[in-house]
Amino acid sequence: MNAADTSATPDDGRSYVLTLGCPDTTGIVAAISGFLAEIGGWITEAAYHSDPASGWFFTRQAIRADSVDLTANEVRNRFAAVAETLGPETEWRLTDTGEPKSVVLLVSKDSHCLLDLLARAERRELPARIEAVIGNHRDLESITTRFGIPFHHVPFPAGDPEGKAASFARVREYVDVHDPDAIVLARFMQILPAELCQAWAGRAINIHHSFLPSFVGARPYHQAFDRGVKLIGATCHYVTADLDAGPIIEQDVGRINHEQTPADMVRQGRDIETLVLSRGVRWHLEDRVLVHGRKTVVFA
Amino acid sequence: MNAADTSATPDDGRSYVLTLGCPDTTGIVAAISGFLAEIGGWITEAAYHSDPASGWFFTRQAIRADSVDLTANEVRNRFAAVAETLGPETEWRLTDTGEPKSVVLLVSKDSHCLLDLLARAERRELPARIEAVIGNHRDLESITTRFGIPFHHVPFPAGDPEGKAASFARVREYVDVHDPDAIVLARFMQILPAELCQAWAGRAINIHHSFLPSFVGARPYHQAFDRGVKLIGATCHYVTADLDAGPIIEQDVGRINHEQTPADMVRQGRDIETLVLSRGVRWHLEDRVLVHGRKTVVFA
Amino acid sequence: MNAADTSATPDDGRSYVLTLGCPDTTGIVAAISGFLAEIGGWITEAAYHSDPASGWFFTRQAIRADSVDLTANEVRNRFAAVAETLGPETEWRLTDTGEPKSVVLLVSKDSHCLLDLLARAERRELPARIEAVIGNHRDLESITTRFGIPFHHVPFPAGDPEGKAASFARVREYVDVHDPDAIVLARFMQILPAELCQAWAGRAINIHHSFLPSFVGARPYHQAFDRGVKLIGATCHYVTADLDAGPIIEQDVGRINHEQTPADMVRQGRDIETLVLSRGVRWHLEDRVLVHGRKTVVFA
Amino acid sequence: MNAADTSATPDDGRSYVLTLGCPDTTGIVAAISGFLAEIGGWITEAAYHSDPASGWFFTRQAIRADSVDLTANEVRNRFAAVAETLGPETEWRLTDTGEPKSVVLLVSKDSHCLLDLLARAERRELPARIEAVIGNHRDLESITTRFGIPFHHVPFPAGDPEGKAASFARVREYVDVHDPDAIVLARFMQILPAELCQAWAGRAINIHHSFLPSFVGARPYHQAFDRGVKLIGATCHYVTADLDAGPIIEQDVGRINHEQTPADMVRQGRDIETLVLSRGVRWHLEDRVLVHGRKTVVFA
Repeated sequence: MNAADTSATPDDGRSYVLTLGCPDTTGIVAAISGFLAEIGGWITEAAYHSDPASGWFFTRQAIRADSVDLTANEVRNRFAAVAETLGPETEWRLTDTGEPKSVVLLVSKDSHCLLDLLARAERRELPARIEAVIGNHRDLESITTRFGIPFHHVPFPAGDPEGKAASFARVREYVDVHDPDAIVLARFMQILPAELCQAWAGRAINIHHSFLPSFVGARPYHQAFDRGVKLIGATCHYVTADLDAGPIIEQDVGRINHEQTPADMVRQGRDIETLVLSRGVRWHLEDRVLVHGRKTVVFA
Repeated sequence: MNAADTSATPDDGRSYVLTLGCPDTTGIVAAISGFLAEIGGWITEAAYHSDPASGWFFTRQAIRADSVDLTANEVRNRFAAVAETLGPETEWRLTDTGEPKSVVLLVSKDSHCLLDLLARAERRELPARIEAVIGNHRDLESITTRFGIPFHHVPFPAGDPEGKAASFARVREYVDVHDPDAIVLARFMQILPAELCQAWAGRAINIHHSFLPSFVGARPYHQAFDRGVKLIGATCHYVTADLDAGPIIEQDVGRINHEQTPADMVRQGRDIETLVLSRGVRWHLEDRVLVHGRKTVVFA
Repeated sequence: MNAADTSATPDDGRSYVLTLGCPDTTGIVAAISGFLAEIGGWITEAAYHSDPASGWFFTRQAIRADSVDLTANEVRNRFAAVAETLGPETEWRLTDTGEPKSVVLLVSKDSHCLLDLLARAERRELPARIEAVIGNHRDLESITTRFGIPFHHVPFPAGDPEGKAASFARVREYVDVHDPDAIVLARFMQILPAELCQAWAGRAINIHHSFLPSFVGARPYHQAFDRGVKLIGATCHYVTADLDAGPIIEQDVGRINHEQTPADMVRQGRDIETLVLSRGVRWHLEDRVLVHGRKTVVFA
Repeated sequence: MNAADTSATPDDGRSYVLTLGCPDTTGIVAAISGFLAEIGGWITEAAYHSDPASGWFFTRQAIRADSVDLTANEVRNRFAAVAETLGPETEWRLTDTGEPKSVVLLVSKDSHCLLDLLARAERRELPARIEAVIGNHRDLESITTRFGIPFHHVPFPAGDPEGKAASFARVREYVDVHDPDAIVLARFMQILPAELCQAWAGRAINIHHSFLPSFVGARPYHQAFDRGVKLIGATCHYVTADLDAGPIIEQDVGRINHEQTPADMVRQGRDIETLVLSRGVRWHLEDRVLVHGRKTVVFA
């Protein structure tokens, strides 16, 4: 064990990150840690969780790559035998932090989340390269290209379902060419069609500007103003075909009071959205988020 | 002006507290502060708000009683003329912190909110006397009487609408004899009938154990667990005939994670409920909460 | 693994809780989890930490007692051999949540922390019995005895070092007769002499009403008011001979503004102190706090 | 009164903002609001505070410029007579939000605060123009010029007091040519000499990466790590000749745990620093911060 958060200190060397979910039973930890000890793995992070409601076990382990005399693929091959003993429903993967990850951003007109993610990627807070930004308006082209990232403009014709489908087909082309580890809807104001939700399942991440499940749908700050709530929030979640109902990765709130108009909430909400999305995206890219059913386990 | 919060320092002397709501226009502040200057009032707190959405103006002013050579009634009589100039819709009241306020609590089996309010009243954090506690079970009788407060047991027969109505009639008798300034549902697990909501409008205060409007109704922590939210909350609101939809006075949240079972949330939620309810009740008793439509202005 | 927090659900059965600290090296997790698998232990909670700065490894494991066919002592005896392989500096203990723990409280005149701990113990949120309360004033005697707990009055003569030493000797007698798992200074306004700090090392817990290391010593809210800080806080820490400098268990803060007088801060601060102390005491009693040098690892 | 926060909606028109501090007495509010009513001023925001400790009264009022048939200068001239009646110590100013404000930033190598302020200014969240950025390194030149803002490089020779003085003289030239409303030290790692503190008194704003007064001086995150605190923070304050001891404008904190290395704290701290500085700078530019002695009143 070693507490160094490798993503925060990306130059300190490569890690192998193992994530695993399986039906809970006795001896799983022993099986995994026994395997890791056997190959000489220096565990730098280890987290476990068992959900009694679903009877499911989850773990995430980070191992210093240089402590193991095996390539990532060799570790995968050897671990497969261990995983098999944990039952046929077991899901696991092992990533190598030395293999670069990629992200594509979908945006509209609001710059705050975009700019924040570009800046974090530039200062290497995110363990990934932002490959492209796709906007349904041109408003954010200049901000994007200032950071040296390509911007693709795909207009979405209002009130034209066929045109919309064609636009989404173009978006999909721009995205899929990168086969990205994350497709981030950074205040993208279009609802993904079901087939894209399916194609990008577990990789498409949205930021919704309310504390879900409150205020699903459009204009959540106006809904919040009308209801007179005393806190506003934001929710980062995986996109599913169910609008604003995908597994939640992260949420946060901020205090408001009667002085604040919806416009003030929009401004204050930007800071909450920005932080919540950036945390969600980083955890996803660091393989800290395990999805099970409608819920997530986040080893943050 | 003088920042001393008179409720926090009840020995520092009496205040007259003026609250007022009226249609917004120019000159209201001048009219009120002119009147107060005329009677020599030393303003210790002054807060104003105008809601552009509703076109409504709100204010709360606290004046040192000893700075004015008039009784509360004399001030009321003279201020009535000022209020009249602000239009027929104007609502205002002037209270004298020297006139004691009273509270009745409705409880069930959970002790945390009850005990907290008893303790705060005993150490004079609440500017009111708790006159009685009414429980639909006997579980909290001993805690109540330890503080020297009378406890009334009113059983509620399950699945018997008529019996329930009779029970509510008895509750009403126990409450109305005190004509209390606040009827606090401190985790009272019965839904008030419409006529009691009406009779106690603006005085009945509930604590709901979720961040409303999320998770209305029963077992909100279980709903939160099932949805996989990352924060749980509590909401203090005025009771109306619309279940869990009355004007919100105060809300707060706490962070949870995947480790927490519904039972853990119940435990952690107690601390949030306790604080949120105690703040809401105190603000109400200090005349800091002005209701307009479905919303509140809280001059905290 | 099983996420049930056994302290929250004390009726769900007994657990063995193992805590261990040792020099970090490869294979520790495997050694411990191998041992637990061998005895058939069902791990309900497992947490690990390695501090690269000190080169120290920490773990806490909870095992369902009914999953193991051994008494706590038998587990201890068998685990001792494992611990030995981890080096001579290894510190560990194994507690049985079925063996009751005990607490003694030291108080002065402020009731909020006392009352909160009495209430939590009564509703079984704390896995311990409060054996006695010792006060240097009689103010809190009535609150204590209402809960059926003995209260001992030990006056502390002001400005009389010898008298003070005699008083502390009496306090020590009242405490040591219980050999308690925790001695909680719940706003006790006397500074423990060095020999008591020594005798109760790792068991004496204090609540300081500031966000340490800011505002060490007396009247921290007045210090905070004078400095014009925008947040006030509280710190729960182990008592050492170094005033207000012992290992920190928990801290929290609340927002204030220019309106608040020191008296308002005292009131608002009570809620922060109460929560911070209750969390610290609970974590201590659940063996979640491991001390190393001046710092703690808290597996909360 | 009208709650519209004019800075949040800069296109809704101009406001006159009056701030005033004077010895507290009866009738101040009446005098000011009487004057404003007399000139027909539509008050959109009004805040008052009286500090009993210092006997000082503070107020901030925002008036819709188009409700008054006078220029800012004419209002100033007429209000001067009112201010005179409030005593010779009275300090006040009236600004016109239609008159643009200016900011100069001093930076070093860390980009987060710089980028955040550039972005907020660009999307008009800050009611000011950023005129120039001055860096003692060239690292942030490219980020600055991407936003179309001039960057001046002024190297600071290490261990050369005379060279340093010359560098500060050049910084002062670059700053003073703009006579800015705020000089923001956005993680500028040089200590301002006393004469600059004097020259820029009330306009130089620093962000310190700790919750002051904890961890004054260098490497506060390392100090925090060594002390084992459970929260880290940031403080935005006016710069005075007393290192890290100027009047505090804003503070905030974030929770950490034993897992976090100093490097992790640095990363997490960036988000806190960024928010705290941006709030402090905005409030300063909106004339929401009144300084009195070592403390501030913030009408946020």
